[in-house]
Amino acid sequence: MRKKSISIGIIGFGNIGSSVARNLKRNSLLIADRVGVPVKVKVVADKSPAALSRARTMGLDAVSIENVLSDDGVDIIVEAMGGENPAKEIILKAVGSGKSVVTSNKEVIAKNLKRFIEAAKKKNISILFEGAVGGGTPIIGPLQEDLAGNEISLLYGIVNGTTNYILSRMSESGMEFRDALAEAKKKGYAEADPKMDIEGHDSAYKAVILASVAMDADVTIKEVYVEGISKISQEDIKYAADIGYVIKLLAVAKKVKNEVEVRVHPMLLPKAHRLASVSGALNAIYVQGSPVGKVLFSAQGAGGDSTSSAVIGDIIKVAKKIARGDSPVSWNNLRVLKVKKIGEIVSRYYIRLRAPDRSGVLAGISKAFADQKVSIQAVVQKETVGNVATIVILIHDVLEKNLLKAISKIKKLPVVKEVCNVIRVASG
Amino acid sequence: MRKKSISIGIIGFGNIGSSVARNLKRNSLLIADRVGVPVKVKVVADKSPAALSRARTMGLDAVSIENVLSDDGVDIIVEAMGGENPAKEIILKAVGSGKSVVTSNKEVIAKNLKRFIEAAKKKNISILFEGAVGGGTPIIGPLQEDLAGNEISLLYGIVNGTTNYILSRMSESGMEFRDALAEAKKKGYAEADPKMDIEGHDSAYKAVILASVAMDADVTIKEVYVEGISKISQEDIKYAADIGYVIKLLAVAKKVKNEVEVRVHPMLLPKAHRLASVSGALNAIYVQGSPVGKVLFSAQGAGGDSTSSAVIGDIIKVAKKIARGDSPVSWNNLRVLKVKKIGEIVSRYYIRLRAPDRSGVLAGISKAFADQKVSIQAVVQKETVGNVATIVILIHDVLEKNLLKAISKIKKLPVVKEVCNVIRVASG
Repeated sequence: MRKKSISIGIIGFGNIGSSVARNLKRNSLLIADRVGVPVKVKVVADKSPAALSRARTMGLDAVSIENVLSDDGVDIIVEAMGGENPAKEIILKAVGSGKSVVTSNKEVIAKNLKRFIEAAKKKNISILFEGAVGGGTPIIGPLQEDLAGNEISLLYGIVNGTTNYILSRMSESGMEFRDALAEAKKKGYAEADPKMDIEGHDSAYKAVILASVAMDADVTIKEVYVEGISKISQEDIKYAADIGYVIKLLAVAKKVKNEVEVRVHPMLLPKAHRLASVSGALNAIYVQGSPVGKVLFSAQGAGGDSTSSAVIGDIIKVAKKIARGDSPVSWNNLRVLKVKKIGEIVSRYYIRLRAPDRSGVLAGISKAFADQKVSIQAVVQKETVGNVATIVILIHDVLEKNLLKAISKIKKLPVVKEVCNVIRVASG
Repeated sequence: MRKKSISIGIIGFGNIGSSVARNLKRNSLLIADRVGVPVKVKVVADKSPAALSRARTMGLDAVSIENVLSDDGVDIIVEAMGGENPAKEIILKAVGSGKSVVTSNKEVIAKNLKRFIEAAKKKNISILFEGAVGGGTPIIGPLQEDLAGNEISLLYGIVNGTTNYILSRMSESGMEFRDALAEAKKKGYAEADPKMDIEGHDSAYKAVILASVAMDADVTIKEVYVEGISKISQEDIKYAADIGYVIKLLAVAKKVKNEVEVRVHPMLLPKAHRLASVSGALNAIYVQGSPVGKVLFSAQGAGGDSTSSAVIGDIIKVAKKIARGDSPVSWNNLRVLKVKKIGEIVSRYYIRLRAPDRSGVLAGISKAFADQKVSIQAVVQKETVGNVATIVILIHDVLEKNLLKAISKIKKLPVVKEVCNVIRVASG
């Protein structure tokens, strides 16, 4: 069924939804040129009266969610509400009625992708979600299309602007976490309740989506190990810098034989790493694949305009297919892959601990690690306050549970006052 | 016409052609999964007996170019010969016989894109060329698909590994251009005759292709202003660094109202610019568009494996379309846009000159620029050797021909010994 124009229904008319409408209109000539026929917003729905009146001010027809879903003239539903519910039911209803869906909702995609793909396949329609990871950064499309001939072995994503802003500020200005967080709130980079960002849950949704698209892995959010940045202190930032590293919160997806690692946690990256200079509210995704090698994608990670670029890119893809009568965008069937428990991963580690500043302490700690067959790359004694020295240790690749065993032994050494922090170190 | 398998004919079995065959085979399961049917190399052609025997060693059927072109079982021709001729005729013949074409040949695409697009449209087949720019870096696909909703105003590309390697080495090690070039040759980053790379002609092809894809601009290679890096001295690198810049060879495509700028030349980039840290043999393309903002794509720019990722990505796109009976990949019709003459561009500039080290000289030079209404951002006196000082001047945005007039006046000043170099400075 070829069409003379493509009609969009937008559900959720907040920052992203209204940016999509505005930029579809602003670039309408260029978009019509690329699609072959005009693409227009036909109807808009939102629960908030303020959003609806904003839609009307833009000349748009504001109706109920049910009316958008049942409008036979609508070809593509843009779901821009955020959150799992009621977005999930809305997407399933839209797909069920044969409408293609574009969304930038990371939570609903991370939790329901497999079901959505199956429903879309049954109805022969498209579901796309480029805006769910990295804001304006093209990553889902490139993984699905341009890099489709590669076996992807590793993805590192800086996919949360709030935490990246905070860590960048801690690194640039020497401030502590709580002050950087306060500044981020003041500047609008952190929400009033920043837990989802700070504790890594937002990044975890994105890690699941990246693993799904790049590795066809059917991963549930519960399988993702998540650790946020609230325990990163200025001391860690400073000592990491001293030995040539920066600390970033990374979403990691890694393929190891027939298993995957999907995890979110702070990580030390060498200063020369291409993600190390991605600062502030930027997002970036670093991909290792064969035969391509290493690829970096980076752009503004948040904000209505930037994300609307991703949503509109998806709309154009689907609109072209509808206009030409082509088959829908296809997704591989997701396979259940074993997700490694965090204790089973192999990584390098940074350890910061405190011990009396007296001869033999470094040697004693080194020996204790060696006794546990944990191989040390470097031990550096840092500042001494009172009679207590801070010691920074870098550990070679080791199975995490073995490291943790060694650390629990080391905590019991009479010479060790406190193990202050343990942070994974990137080797890729 | 839906197909049960897709057959590839490769013409040109050098580094890239053989990497494509090897990696298509290596990742064949994954590729079949994505396409829906298997993708196989059916026949290979090359003029070199060595290449043909390599193909046979890989179990491939090596035939004549004519036989590949006339093979009714071949769905997609991969042209991997390089150069304009005979690649141009081969591509036109392939398209004429209804076969889709994938190529990584920048020269033949830069010189014939409009004709190829028209021929492909007439025959309802696809022509794709992701590998022609940036090696493994996804850029043509993202511009054409993921960023399709954006009005692209600026592209800066580090798209030549040889020159980027040389400039990086000059910057890291303090060596002069000729020594860095010699090292690049020794390490295989520069060809025996490096003129195409060093003088910017290779980058010019890529600038034309980027302007075509991002701005639908029909630009001929003759309209591109090209300046290479052989005049960049260690002094320029050092003084640029002193004032916070690095020097890169950039391919530039810029839209200014209804005109475009398409040019290749060295440029000073602020150290904080996202292209500044792209060093060695890496390629990167920086894109500014609305609504997305600023986007960076970066990967290995050369090498058979990296480029084969791009070629195979294109093969998968076309193969999917053939396998599903979908319409071919579409390109916008290119429009003739006026290409600005280099004298008409507005830019910032870095000027290095030599003058006697005596009082009043800085003031005299500053006044001379002011008299020509050229606005100075900074004047810094650098090293003095004998009685002659090196002076570095940064000029605010100015029409290039006005700057050149001012410089020709300044050259005649009795106090100016020599204007050693003039390099454009990025403002985007």
